[in-house]
Amino acid sequence: MPETLRLRRVAIDTYHENVAYLHRDCLAYRSEGFQALNKLEIHVNGDGPPVLAVLNVVDDPAITARDELGLSEQAFAQLGVAEGTPARIAQAQPPDSLGAVHRKIHGERLDQAEYHAIAQDIVGNRYSKIEMSAFIVACAQTGLERDEVLALTRAMLDSGERLDWGEPLVVDKHCIGGVPGNRTSLIVVPIVAAHGLLCPKTSSRAITSPAGTADTMECLARVTLDPRELRAIAQRERGFLAWGGTARLAPADDVLIAVERPLSLDSPGQMVASILAKKLAAGSTHLIVDIPIGPSAKIRHTRDALRLRKLFEFVGDSLGLTLEVLLTDGRQPIGRGVGPVLEVRDALQVLRNDPQAPADLRAKSLLLAGHLLELDPQVRGGAGQALAEEILVSGRAWAKMEALIDAQGRNREPPTLGALRHEVVADNDGIVCAIDNRQIARIARLAGAPLDPGAGVDLYRRLGEPVRAGDALYAIHAEFPADFRFARAQAARHPGYRIGEPGTTIAEEGVA
Amino acid sequence: MPETLRLRRVAIDTYHENVAYLHRDCLAYRSEGFQALNKLEIHVNGDGPPVLAVLNVVDDPAITARDELGLSEQAFAQLGVAEGTPARIAQAQPPDSLGAVHRKIHGERLDQAEYHAIAQDIVGNRYSKIEMSAFIVACAQTGLERDEVLALTRAMLDSGERLDWGEPLVVDKHCIGGVPGNRTSLIVVPIVAAHGLLCPKTSSRAITSPAGTADTMECLARVTLDPRELRAIAQRERGFLAWGGTARLAPADDVLIAVERPLSLDSPGQMVASILAKKLAAGSTHLIVDIPIGPSAKIRHTRDALRLRKLFEFVGDSLGLTLEVLLTDGRQPIGRGVGPVLEVRDALQVLRNDPQAPADLRAKSLLLAGHLLELDPQVRGGAGQALAEEILVSGRAWAKMEALIDAQGRNREPPTLGALRHEVVADNDGIVCAIDNRQIARIARLAGAPLDPGAGVDLYRRLGEPVRAGDALYAIHAEFPADFRFARAQAARHPGYRIGEPGTTIAEEGVA
Repeated sequence: MPETLRLRRVAIDTYHENVAYLHRDCLAYRSEGFQALNKLEIHVNGDGPPVLAVLNVVDDPAITARDELGLSEQAFAQLGVAEGTPARIAQAQPPDSLGAVHRKIHGERLDQAEYHAIAQDIVGNRYSKIEMSAFIVACAQTGLERDEVLALTRAMLDSGERLDWGEPLVVDKHCIGGVPGNRTSLIVVPIVAAHGLLCPKTSSRAITSPAGTADTMECLARVTLDPRELRAIAQRERGFLAWGGTARLAPADDVLIAVERPLSLDSPGQMVASILAKKLAAGSTHLIVDIPIGPSAKIRHTRDALRLRKLFEFVGDSLGLTLEVLLTDGRQPIGRGVGPVLEVRDALQVLRNDPQAPADLRAKSLLLAGHLLELDPQVRGGAGQALAEEILVSGRAWAKMEALIDAQGRNREPPTLGALRHEVVADNDGIVCAIDNRQIARIARLAGAPLDPGAGVDLYRRLGEPVRAGDALYAIHAEFPADFRFARAQAARHPGYRIGEPGTTIAEEGVA
Repeated sequence: MPETLRLRRVAIDTYHENVAYLHRDCLAYRSEGFQALNKLEIHVNGDGPPVLAVLNVVDDPAITARDELGLSEQAFAQLGVAEGTPARIAQAQPPDSLGAVHRKIHGERLDQAEYHAIAQDIVGNRYSKIEMSAFIVACAQTGLERDEVLALTRAMLDSGERLDWGEPLVVDKHCIGGVPGNRTSLIVVPIVAAHGLLCPKTSSRAITSPAGTADTMECLARVTLDPRELRAIAQRERGFLAWGGTARLAPADDVLIAVERPLSLDSPGQMVASILAKKLAAGSTHLIVDIPIGPSAKIRHTRDALRLRKLFEFVGDSLGLTLEVLLTDGRQPIGRGVGPVLEVRDALQVLRNDPQAPADLRAKSLLLAGHLLELDPQVRGGAGQALAEEILVSGRAWAKMEALIDAQGRNREPPTLGALRHEVVADNDGIVCAIDNRQIARIARLAGAPLDPGAGVDLYRRLGEPVRAGDALYAIHAEFPADFRFARAQAARHPGYRIGEPGTTIAEEGVA
């Protein structure tokens, strides 16, 4: 039996998991010997640590021949050698840190060294998804003590790069999510940057929501900017609104999220570690965290929000991040539009002081901007919000937004609203007594948002407003007929609005 | 945009997980919209429930073209339609029972209906491995109450077929594993069948151990027999030693094991449910369970074994299975040989009343056979072991084994012992004060067992025996040089024997 196989790149993206492909009748190794244990290790040239991969057995030599070892895109890139390079395989030793995962499953507390080892093995692609799932569930089930959340945050922070803006005051804001339309960053960043505070905002694209800040900004300007460009823009304009994916910020977090998300597990400890590791890696020194509270928000009760706030404060303080947590009203979407083009419309109305601008989006943006401005030692305590309003009303925020758009690269062909339009109407007279954030988000996603930027939901009615049977509650916009049909069908089943008898009380939880 | 894709079989075996392959630039759907949520659902012809699959994104049209939907072997077989059939996909709804998994993660107790729903979704291939891992870890972490173990056993039993031998007394034995060389079935089954008790033994092949009963028996006879053949042999010979994989016995268990094994999670509740579901599905009415106890066995302490025994008894009694648990000495391997050919040698020495036969294997087999024989109402309590010995000494057990071999189909070219041989010797004078079951098993596997039946470890010294420096402790046998090298290197690092000063006490835990 030969002992080496020729490496072959198999153009399959296995999404944060290394996969190796071995022919069932491999000439050098018996595939069945490896299959039960799931993972194997790959050695090239005999030097350097082996690369680990999950095994898939192949019956088609066109994918992997009997003398080849196929590797998924990620595994092939990690080995970093040419196709055809001879490789040997062996039963994989479980990564060292898996012992700590077992201890966590058995209810033990892990220490800093153990979290570091786990994060390093994760970014080294040494965990299978089965193992990552075990780690996430073990943490969610017994919960993490606050020292463990701190240790996990440090471990994820140390798993990648850390930007340094060379200034003592680098501000940012972050919302824990779950409320559609909550696109305050497009208003807050220009206000704060216009004042002169450094606010280099890196954001994610939407993953399970109908729009992320990066998707929305992309309707107006380029958001994929390399670190050199980001630095130049920040220096000149004091801020930007860019996609965070071009730097390697807390990469262990990205890998874990790829497993947390399909499991719909978002435990407080993991949420805090994930957010703060990313912000610290992005170079923030001062952070405002927005926790919306509402029956269909991520956090339903004030008591949970207060507990989460303590955790944010503890980890932030321990890592030298000046941090303030605001509890806000998350009982309904913010603004009117849900989806990139619609959210841009709302944000620009606010920035341009349009009388039609949604009042709630404006008010919330001024609240957040006010708190950020007060981080400037020159701004008197309590004066931030008035200052923010002055910057907005004077047009300086709008001018700054225009400057940011030009600096990042203006989108000359901004996307337009989806032409397919359907109104969802009230079945009976009454008042709007509940709007389900999750349903509205779901309908907007089914309509095509964020991939079709013009798709989404345009809300006409807010909590507490009276309606009559037949009044339009919202419009669905879509670009493609199939998406349009999915979204309409979903809205017919679960419109996301509850119309109560006049006089019905509206759920009060949620702090203004 | 077209809305359907042509189905294509992709010859990749993804081992108990449905995988769908979509080209990154698919003509009908945007792959990135599906990737973050991991799973999609596949509809064909609009009727019938959709098939769920995890998504892999492909960049090579030779694997999956832009107008195709590729399916892994298992997913393609589940759909059961021809290649080229038009299919539609959508974001997958999580399987209904996943809510129960979330409740388990949050520490709740699940009921029978929930365990049934989980088992049905698992055999319907509606769980990804991430989700199965979450279920397994959630169960392992908080543990299962005994009512839950009963519910899980029932759910796994009901997930497949159930054999019925049409007799009121169908006996079997099962060892929970972890002790190499423990091949008592090859002796117990002939003794019990020679007496006339029905003992239709279905066994597994080795998965993480150096030999399973099926692998060992395969050195002597055919073990892959269809249900009709099994029935005919059982009727004529009152027993067989066959591979259990030809019937669909508790298939949900097989799927869960595919995830438990790489995680090395084997919690008591899952172990009991797995063993009893398989035995009940195989039609057993009476069962002896062997729990070896020792520092390197699965169960280390008598207190844990007693707790496990209670759990076996509770579930067995609740499901109408007459069950007896024996606690045995698991401080060292049983017999001398570890690996199929070597274990056959030991078993045949016992059956042929060879004076060289390993005494421990003989004694343990008689103990187990004695307990099984006493299940016969005609056998007086306490008389079983003497009866077993009589059957063995008289040659009737050997004659029955010959008859079973002929009935199953004698292997005319039995494998021979691997010709590559290396002796591992004692470094110093002293007595053998510990033998590590796991290390010995590991070395035998590295040497090639069970895939190379002639590979393994032949033990020369047992616990408590005196040795002198340079004495051979055991020999490694292999068929192929690479395996031979791996096994020797492992033995050099961790020989698996501890030689103590004369007078050292030997760990006593372990019940004879």
